[in-house]
Amino acid sequence: MKEKDGLRLRTGEESPLCPGPVNIPEPVIRAMNRNNEDYRSPAVPALTKTLLEDVKKIFKTTSGTPFLIPTTGTGAWESALTNTLSPGDRIISFLIGQFSLLWIDQQQRLNFNVDVVESDWGQGANLDILAEKLASDNSHTIKAICIVHNETATGVTNNLATVRKLLDDYRHPALLLVDGVSSICALDFRMDEWGVDVALTGSQKALSLPTGMGIVCASPKALEASKTAKSVRVFFDWNDYLKFYKMGTYWPYTPSIQLLYGLRAALDLIFEEGLENVIRRHSRLGTATRLAVEAWGLKNCTQKEEWYSDTVTAVMVPGYVDSSEIVRRAWKRFNLSLGLGLNKVAGKVFRIGHLGNVNELQLLGCLSGVEMVLRDVGYPVKLGSGVAAAAAYLLNNTPLIPSRI
Amino acid sequence: MKEKDGLRLRTGEESPLCPGPVNIPEPVIRAMNRNNEDYRSPAVPALTKTLLEDVKKIFKTTSGTPFLIPTTGTGAWESALTNTLSPGDRIISFLIGQFSLLWIDQQQRLNFNVDVVESDWGQGANLDILAEKLASDNSHTIKAICIVHNETATGVTNNLATVRKLLDDYRHPALLLVDGVSSICALDFRMDEWGVDVALTGSQKALSLPTGMGIVCASPKALEASKTAKSVRVFFDWNDYLKFYKMGTYWPYTPSIQLLYGLRAALDLIFEEGLENVIRRHSRLGTATRLAVEAWGLKNCTQKEEWYSDTVTAVMVPGYVDSSEIVRRAWKRFNLSLGLGLNKVAGKVFRIGHLGNVNELQLLGCLSGVEMVLRDVGYPVKLGSGVAAAAAYLLNNTPLIPSRI
Amino acid sequence: MKEKDGLRLRTGEESPLCPGPVNIPEPVIRAMNRNNEDYRSPAVPALTKTLLEDVKKIFKTTSGTPFLIPTTGTGAWESALTNTLSPGDRIISFLIGQFSLLWIDQQQRLNFNVDVVESDWGQGANLDILAEKLASDNSHTIKAICIVHNETATGVTNNLATVRKLLDDYRHPALLLVDGVSSICALDFRMDEWGVDVALTGSQKALSLPTGMGIVCASPKALEASKTAKSVRVFFDWNDYLKFYKMGTYWPYTPSIQLLYGLRAALDLIFEEGLENVIRRHSRLGTATRLAVEAWGLKNCTQKEEWYSDTVTAVMVPGYVDSSEIVRRAWKRFNLSLGLGLNKVAGKVFRIGHLGNVNELQLLGCLSGVEMVLRDVGYPVKLGSGVAAAAAYLLNNTPLIPSRI
Amino acid sequence: MKEKDGLRLRTGEESPLCPGPVNIPEPVIRAMNRNNEDYRSPAVPALTKTLLEDVKKIFKTTSGTPFLIPTTGTGAWESALTNTLSPGDRIISFLIGQFSLLWIDQQQRLNFNVDVVESDWGQGANLDILAEKLASDNSHTIKAICIVHNETATGVTNNLATVRKLLDDYRHPALLLVDGVSSICALDFRMDEWGVDVALTGSQKALSLPTGMGIVCASPKALEASKTAKSVRVFFDWNDYLKFYKMGTYWPYTPSIQLLYGLRAALDLIFEEGLENVIRRHSRLGTATRLAVEAWGLKNCTQKEEWYSDTVTAVMVPGYVDSSEIVRRAWKRFNLSLGLGLNKVAGKVFRIGHLGNVNELQLLGCLSGVEMVLRDVGYPVKLGSGVAAAAAYLLNNTPLIPSRI
Repeated sequence: MKEKDGLRLRTGEESPLCPGPVNIPEPVIRAMNRNNEDYRSPAVPALTKTLLEDVKKIFKTTSGTPFLIPTTGTGAWESALTNTLSPGDRIISFLIGQFSLLWIDQQQRLNFNVDVVESDWGQGANLDILAEKLASDNSHTIKAICIVHNETATGVTNNLATVRKLLDDYRHPALLLVDGVSSICALDFRMDEWGVDVALTGSQKALSLPTGMGIVCASPKALEASKTAKSVRVFFDWNDYLKFYKMGTYWPYTPSIQLLYGLRAALDLIFEEGLENVIRRHSRLGTATRLAVEAWGLKNCTQKEEWYSDTVTAVMVPGYVDSSEIVRRAWKRFNLSLGLGLNKVAGKVFRIGHLGNVNELQLLGCLSGVEMVLRDVGYPVKLGSGVAAAAAYLLNNTPLIPSRI
Repeated sequence: MKEKDGLRLRTGEESPLCPGPVNIPEPVIRAMNRNNEDYRSPAVPALTKTLLEDVKKIFKTTSGTPFLIPTTGTGAWESALTNTLSPGDRIISFLIGQFSLLWIDQQQRLNFNVDVVESDWGQGANLDILAEKLASDNSHTIKAICIVHNETATGVTNNLATVRKLLDDYRHPALLLVDGVSSICALDFRMDEWGVDVALTGSQKALSLPTGMGIVCASPKALEASKTAKSVRVFFDWNDYLKFYKMGTYWPYTPSIQLLYGLRAALDLIFEEGLENVIRRHSRLGTATRLAVEAWGLKNCTQKEEWYSDTVTAVMVPGYVDSSEIVRRAWKRFNLSLGLGLNKVAGKVFRIGHLGNVNELQLLGCLSGVEMVLRDVGYPVKLGSGVAAAAAYLLNNTPLIPSRI
Repeated sequence: MKEKDGLRLRTGEESPLCPGPVNIPEPVIRAMNRNNEDYRSPAVPALTKTLLEDVKKIFKTTSGTPFLIPTTGTGAWESALTNTLSPGDRIISFLIGQFSLLWIDQQQRLNFNVDVVESDWGQGANLDILAEKLASDNSHTIKAICIVHNETATGVTNNLATVRKLLDDYRHPALLLVDGVSSICALDFRMDEWGVDVALTGSQKALSLPTGMGIVCASPKALEASKTAKSVRVFFDWNDYLKFYKMGTYWPYTPSIQLLYGLRAALDLIFEEGLENVIRRHSRLGTATRLAVEAWGLKNCTQKEEWYSDTVTAVMVPGYVDSSEIVRRAWKRFNLSLGLGLNKVAGKVFRIGHLGNVNELQLLGCLSGVEMVLRDVGYPVKLGSGVAAAAAYLLNNTPLIPSRI
Repeated sequence: MKEKDGLRLRTGEESPLCPGPVNIPEPVIRAMNRNNEDYRSPAVPALTKTLLEDVKKIFKTTSGTPFLIPTTGTGAWESALTNTLSPGDRIISFLIGQFSLLWIDQQQRLNFNVDVVESDWGQGANLDILAEKLASDNSHTIKAICIVHNETATGVTNNLATVRKLLDDYRHPALLLVDGVSSICALDFRMDEWGVDVALTGSQKALSLPTGMGIVCASPKALEASKTAKSVRVFFDWNDYLKFYKMGTYWPYTPSIQLLYGLRAALDLIFEEGLENVIRRHSRLGTATRLAVEAWGLKNCTQKEEWYSDTVTAVMVPGYVDSSEIVRRAWKRFNLSLGLGLNKVAGKVFRIGHLGNVNELQLLGCLSGVEMVLRDVGYPVKLGSGVAAAAAYLLNNTPLIPSRI
């Protein structure tokens, strides 16, 4: 069988260190390698039931209600907003990079009154300003705080615990809506403890599935809000799901059978590795990547350590280098997929994704690829330097594979 | 590898003659058996370009603009409506079964002024009333006609050519929005010739893919309408797609890589068989099914021959039989998935799907299964009678497999 | 992805009722959908260990030693013979059809002194002659009895219990070597109870795997014989396997990782259905097929009921029909793979395989296909007659699918 | 779907740099992801015909006759020997490592008169002694020269052109039988030019398929020899194949349908990359690996540059290190499969495989893994040193991926 598209021809595995869609584990590919099934037979609801129960664990919630929506992250955003808010509602939203920008664009187009708090790209959400706004909002005009947990464009992780603390300090009832697309299942995320009202992620990120499932989890307070929210919605309406949950058939419209079995396999893998071990692995790979960047003499786009992201690292290149050229050459020469710099940081940063189904040697191979490409575009990196720095850390911090002890 | 869910255990292939999701052909399963890819690399846009070009052929349009949306049929409906209409717009919509009912429900919740034209379930859209309404609408208050080409709940195919003729006769500028979910790629569908403004289908029907891609095709007039349509939309906004089409990167958000390759394989199979041959095969299987039903002494839910559907047959059962019991036993005993009777016809009909990737012997095996189940629930069918009637027709009307001549 | 070979193009599933290779169940295809693994890592021996233990169950042996050889049934034959016998050894072998003929050809080329007992094709092994030969062999010149349990070319099942009884009655020490290629895992087979010394099968038959694994099981007596057998052998030498069994690494040369995981999945499916239920299903499908043949007014090639095979039925056609033409048209027109008549019965019989991963509705669909083809070649069968006869039996004898009760 | 065997649980891709079985490319896995087919239908012979034609290209032969045997490399050896030689025949065979040792063991057990020419492990075949033996063999008692092209245990490549030259110089008619298991499709191999009479390889090596197909190619002279060779053989008998080749049905017994389609895909990939480019890639990766070994201050087991292997590198460890411990820890900690030292070099060397479907970044990642493990077992390697040396070479010698230029 010939691969039709010549562009695809390459030897060996692709090394996709772009920040998503990420590598799918073999057991998940296997689980999805199947025919359709009648979703109205008793088998699919039985499967769905276990998925809804188990998926709550990756949000660390017991009180939340999850929805597995046949959509992408963008649709999951829309689901979070339209089910909880009404047009004209004032919401605070933090602009810190391309993905928060896109969410804000959606919020505005959905006719919310968006109070944008902007930071330099490379900084986290400005929580001081949030504090001020909450302090002065005695009449509770602010209906929701919208924040990305991890901004994929700049590699910045926001501190959600502090957001919750501020809301609590000011006894403010605003909903807390969190985009966890590049965090949930990779970074420490605690829906219940942090009082997150809607959390969401996409299947193709840390869950390491194909694109196509938006996973949204709503707190009881969010569900309550959905009863009065006036935003127009049908496809994304939680209420349709809740009706079918009650009936035990679960699906208001046809789900992807393949993604359901894929999610089952993905969750099984995560639980077998242990969610805390998964998070530790991301921390290990994130640290190793940052050590490599430092060894190369390059700057992390993220301006302070407190915001360092363990799922994606945006690397700043010297002024005389076009970061897009790095991405292009990595792909053309070494079959390595890096992330482009987007919008404000286009040409200035390239991004290394280290989330989902990735391990130490894959990362080191890719770091070595980055070194070669950096040299290729004229940056005088010492070959092996970044790999050595990363390996020194990994050597001391990588545990034995538990199943092989 | 153990199949986890005991409910799934069965020997031999499932015989899914439910009207969808349908059996996926092996080459399509194969094409989708793959890892993720970086959708921002040059390879994915190159693939997308050919898909957008080729998918127009199944709509029989050269002037239409297709959108491959990561959603289901319900989302495709929403995309069709919100991109072309504004809240309060008067639309005419035909209620003839469960799926048209659900679409009308969506139309109402999206705040359109829905002028519902209802028929008995088992009848087609009442086009006489349409004619009257068009005749009296000199001021063109009607903004759109919404119609399902094939009502999957009752097995009724509407006559779209007549709808177009009426619009032309009355020189009425209303948009023609068509749900082709259980028709496109199986029944004769002519977007350009019939002046359809938005046509849509879902991947899991006649295209025989997994669920997850809503395929929407817009006429130039529909695109023009989208410029002024005031319905709120973001995820479903065509404009975001058009912006990325222009840039040549095609995707406003992450597509399912697997579904793109799957669609490529599905289209290749359809073009190799020949779209007209595919339509002829559906006609052949539809006729054979109806002959079997007749031989069993049962009634087709569809009341007139002009509405007979070649993709699904709803079979009426005698009053003393509960059709749900037929569906249940077929699944529990013979691994046969029939379609339930829905809503008004619950308990009264069961449905045989014969669309997508299905051939003569699969149909005959399932008809034989239906005969056994009918006997099992107490209906005195003569075993072999329906199969014989269907086989007599198929024997005379099934051509040699062209590739094997 | 285009299917390259035009000959393959067809819609719907192939209906392979040829007697092998048979349909692979989806969970097995899934389990085999994997990359290679280092077979010297600890994981592969751990897997192998469970396979060797579990595979004994399908032979119904506790004392046997199984070998999973990367070869076909022909290689498995060679393994059975060369490990237990020396050139010149007298063996009794029954010629009752094409496959026993091929085995005898191998025996002769391996330089054994083959005492051939021939029957008409359509009859079972002549055990009266065996009795005579055993009776007169006081000096025990007969070293082995070689017999196929089920002759796939004629659909004849031999009575192994009687063979054992004769050996016991005459207190004859000859080894009993059994080809169980089209019987083991489908027909009742009892290695220990019947004192079978070497039993063998191939992966692509009742186990419903791809071709490539010859499964051979040796009794303690056979192992003992292998110590002195002088036939030259290296690749097929059990001793190499036994050496590695002792070391716990199991493999003298590289196994197919995919087939190991496939066998695991195949065994799991069989054990979940229950081996006795699997055997009952074959009996049910075999009976139904014979009832159809009778209803068509055609003769079973098998001359007596005691030899009827529940895995394959060879159907005799009237003199004016060429059975090859039936096979050809079934494939060309209905995507149905029947078995050709071989050698002496070429042109005179066609074969319906009903072994492995096949269920009631698949069989009925194919029987209906056979009816159409019979009509097509001029035999005046009443359409639906065979299907009706088979269905009447199946309706009364097919239990509910246990996992769905 | 839970992965049953806990030993398999790991995150990210396995990094199998053991010398085989190697990583299967995704398009090949895809091509093999299929049901069985009736191998007696016209489709399978049509496919086989193209395979037999195309597989000759990887041997660089136009006059050879290939056999695709359902077996492993060990079986391919047996096929080469038994089809061309008679018991008692004198053959010269070179013992230079574990795999040549195993072949010699087979030759002896098959009753040939093996004239073993032994070298130190780490040296190539001693061709001076061959010259002497040929010089003194005026009566042509030597019937065949048996030689491994590439000894996988020590990473030694023999010079076949010289062997041919010697045979020609002495006008000696001995057959030249070559084990190309770890060379063909990776190293420069020229069957016709070098007058090789039987060349063989296994599917799981440079072809990057699963195990299960032994590919044997016979020169006209070898075919001629097979007519009089008296070694007993049935399963491996070329003559059975040749009979079916003539009939155009090709298969004397059931082939693995999956491996046939897999071979088609594997050959397509090789031809698209270009066989010469494939060979160049192996040369590039081999050189890079040796540079890394040198940078680590370790010795190559291969004693002279002329024997350096581009498919596998055996690395000698200092006396105080147990190389098995390196292999164990690589697997247990970094999911990296290295090759063990075998037999005489057990504990003294570990092996890095760089053959088949592997690219630059995978190699570099694994080299980095080796560095960490070396440190872990107490060898004071400078982290990054080997990677840097390899990368410096690869940076200057890796061309753009042609399909992406």
